[in-house]
Amino acid sequence: MRDVAIVGIGATQFGELWNNSFRSLGIEAGSRAIEDANLSGDEIDALYIGNMSAGRFISQQHIDALIADYSGMATNHIPATRVEAGGASGGVAFREAVIAVASGLHDTVMVGGAEKMTDLDDASINSVMDATADAEWEAGMGLTLTSLYAIIARRMMFEGTVTREGIASVAVNSHFHGALNPGAQFRKAIPIETVLKSGPVAEPLGVFDCAPITDGAAAVILCPLEDAKKYTDKYVKVSATSQASDTLALFQRPDITTFEATRVAAKKAYEMAGITPKDINVAEIHDDYTVSGIMALQDLGFYKKGEAGNAFLNGETHFDAGKVAINTSGGLKARGYPVGASGVAQIVEITEQLRGTAEKRQVKNAKYGLAQSVGGTGSAVTVSILEAI
Amino acid sequence: MRDVAIVGIGATQFGELWNNSFRSLGIEAGSRAIEDANLSGDEIDALYIGNMSAGRFISQQHIDALIADYSGMATNHIPATRVEAGGASGGVAFREAVIAVASGLHDTVMVGGAEKMTDLDDASINSVMDATADAEWEAGMGLTLTSLYAIIARRMMFEGTVTREGIASVAVNSHFHGALNPGAQFRKAIPIETVLKSGPVAEPLGVFDCAPITDGAAAVILCPLEDAKKYTDKYVKVSATSQASDTLALFQRPDITTFEATRVAAKKAYEMAGITPKDINVAEIHDDYTVSGIMALQDLGFYKKGEAGNAFLNGETHFDAGKVAINTSGGLKARGYPVGASGVAQIVEITEQLRGTAEKRQVKNAKYGLAQSVGGTGSAVTVSILEAI
Repeated sequence: MRDVAIVGIGATQFGELWNNSFRSLGIEAGSRAIEDANLSGDEIDALYIGNMSAGRFISQQHIDALIADYSGMATNHIPATRVEAGGASGGVAFREAVIAVASGLHDTVMVGGAEKMTDLDDASINSVMDATADAEWEAGMGLTLTSLYAIIARRMMFEGTVTREGIASVAVNSHFHGALNPGAQFRKAIPIETVLKSGPVAEPLGVFDCAPITDGAAAVILCPLEDAKKYTDKYVKVSATSQASDTLALFQRPDITTFEATRVAAKKAYEMAGITPKDINVAEIHDDYTVSGIMALQDLGFYKKGEAGNAFLNGETHFDAGKVAINTSGGLKARGYPVGASGVAQIVEITEQLRGTAEKRQVKNAKYGLAQSVGGTGSAVTVSILEAI
Repeated sequence: MRDVAIVGIGATQFGELWNNSFRSLGIEAGSRAIEDANLSGDEIDALYIGNMSAGRFISQQHIDALIADYSGMATNHIPATRVEAGGASGGVAFREAVIAVASGLHDTVMVGGAEKMTDLDDASINSVMDATADAEWEAGMGLTLTSLYAIIARRMMFEGTVTREGIASVAVNSHFHGALNPGAQFRKAIPIETVLKSGPVAEPLGVFDCAPITDGAAAVILCPLEDAKKYTDKYVKVSATSQASDTLALFQRPDITTFEATRVAAKKAYEMAGITPKDINVAEIHDDYTVSGIMALQDLGFYKKGEAGNAFLNGETHFDAGKVAINTSGGLKARGYPVGASGVAQIVEITEQLRGTAEKRQVKNAKYGLAQSVGGTGSAVTVSILEAI
C-alpha cells in the first residue's frame, strides 16, 4: 500500500448557522480545501462523505450524489460515497478515503464531513442522536444517549477513578481552547463552576458536560505521499488510520468505564505508525460528553486509569503545557459538534498544528498528532495518526 | 492491487416478512454466507454494510455496530462500516469491500446489505424513497421518485425509442424469472396485459411497473483470489467493480433517457475486466421501475438505443435464450427490492449463475456476469463484473 498525504484542508465556521443550508456548508468547506491544495476540482477523482443523518435532519438521503453535484464534480462522474457510523461518521469517511488512495485505486481524493442539525426542533434532534444507541434495548426503553454517558460517569465516580471536578474540567479545557479558535461555536473560556453549576441533563452531567447542537462542514484532500510536493510544501503524512467496533448496547460490555474499541483501534494505529502514546504531541478527542474525554485520555494510553481527571484539572492538557495538548480546536464541546463533520474537522485541526498554522493555539514543535472519533457509546471508534514532514 | 474472489454467499427470503426484525434478517444472511464459505465468524476481519435508511425505517442509526454486534463479530472489535447511496447502497458497499481486500488492508471481508421497510406505513415509506431525489428541487416541489421515472418513460416514448409494450415487458421478464426463484417475493409469471392494465401510479407507469416494498438481506464473503481455494472450490473472481455519480436532480442532465453514470461506470468496468459487453452472459440490472430496465440494457452496451424494448418483448432476455440473460433472480420487480440489500443480492445471484448452482433458472456456460446498482434517478451507479474460474 502507498503512503498517503494530506495536501489541503478547509472548514466552515461552526455554530447555529441559520443562514446556511447543508449544501452551502458542504460547498464552502470543499472549496476551501481545494483552494488550500492549489488544485482544481477537476483533479479530484473520488469523494467520501461522513454524514450521520441528513435523511432525518434535512429529509435528504443519497447525499453522496448531492455533494458531488453541488461541488461541480458530478460533471466528471467521479465515485462519491457516503459513510455513516453515528458520531464516528467523519472518522470512518477519512479512513475509507485513505484506503482508496493507499490501494492505488484513486490518486486525489476529497473527504468531506457535513451536518445541518438546526433545521429540526430540539426534541427531534435528540431523537436522531438517541438513534445511535441501541433502538431496541436502550433508546426503546427510554435511555437517551446522555443518560448512557451519565451512567458511565456515575460508575467511574463510584469506582473512584475520577471526581466530578475532574469530569467537569474536560469542558473547561475545551472552552479554554475554543476561545483561541475563531472558527469555534463557543469562543469564551469558562471557570469550572460554570460546568458544576449548570442545569442538570442526566445527573451527574449538566448542560456544560454536553457538546452542543451545531451546523458545519469540513473537508480534507488526500493524495499519494510521493505526489504531495506537486501541490504544496505544507503537507502532512497520514501515518496510521484504524477502526474498531464494539457491542451497540452499553450493558453488554464487561466494563463500561473504558471503550475497548478505542483501545483496540489505538493499539493498531500506534503499531502502524511505529510509535507509542508518548510520541504524540497533540490530540483531538471525541468529547461529545465530558466523561468521554476522561475515557479517551486513558484508553489512548496518554494517562493511566484514574489519572486523566487530574490532568485536565491541572491544565496539563493545554496547548502550551508541554504534554499532550488535548482538543486545541475547542473539541466537540466548544468548537461544536456537527456530527458527521466532527471526525473530518479533527483532521483539519491536527493538520493545522503539524503545519504550524494554528496561530494562537499552536503547539510548539508538534511532530505527531492523533484524532479519535467515536460513534454511539464507543460502538465504533476510529484513531488516525498524522505526522509532520 | 490484489485480485479478489467471492467465497461465500447468503440471502434471506425476500418479501413482506412480518415475523422478522432487521436484526434477524441480517444475522440469517450473514450466517448463511459464513457457512457457505466454510469459515468461522472469527476469521472475518472487516464488515461493510449497505443500508439506505434504517434511521427512518426502524429508528436505528449506526447499524454498522448493530450488525457487527448481532453477528457476534463485535467481540473481535473488527471495523464495521455502513455506506449509503440510495438504491445503490448495496453496490457501493460491495465496491468498498473489494477495495479493502484488493488494497491488502483486510483479508477476509463480509459485505452485507439489509433493509426492513414494512415496519413503517406506506406514506412514510414513500417519503423515505423520495428522499433519494433532490429534496429541494424535486421532492420539495412534489415530484416523487415514481413521477421522475414516469417523466423519463414519457420522454423515451415521445422520442420513439421504446413503446409502452416494450417498457411493460421488463416486468414480464422479471416475473418470468421470479417464478423460477424460490427466494423471490413474487413467484408467478404474468402476461403483458397484467402490466398494461395495472392501476396507474404516475402515467404511463402503473403498479406493475414499480418494484415492491420488501424486507430482506443478503451477504457475500470476499478474500484474496490466491487464498480462495483454502475455503472452497466454488469461488468466483471479481474482475471489476466501478462507480460513477451524476447530478442529483434529473432536470440538470442534457439527456434524461440515458444514465451517464451507468455508461461511465460500465466503460470503466469493461476496461478493468478486459472484456466487452458481448462477453457478458448474465446480468442483474436495477429495475426499480420498468423503464430503468430499458435504459440499463442500452447504457450497459448490450443493445443500441431503441432496441432494448424489443429485446424484452421477444424474450431474448430469458435465461435460456442464449443472449445476455437479464435478471434471472427476478430482479427488483419480482425478487423484491429491500433497498440496501439489492446491490448485494445481485452479487449473490451472479455468483450462483457462475458457479452453476442457479437450478431452474441456470444460464448455460455462464463465464461472465455483471451487476448494475442505481441510486436515485441514476445519481450514483455501480457496475461490477464477476468471472467464473
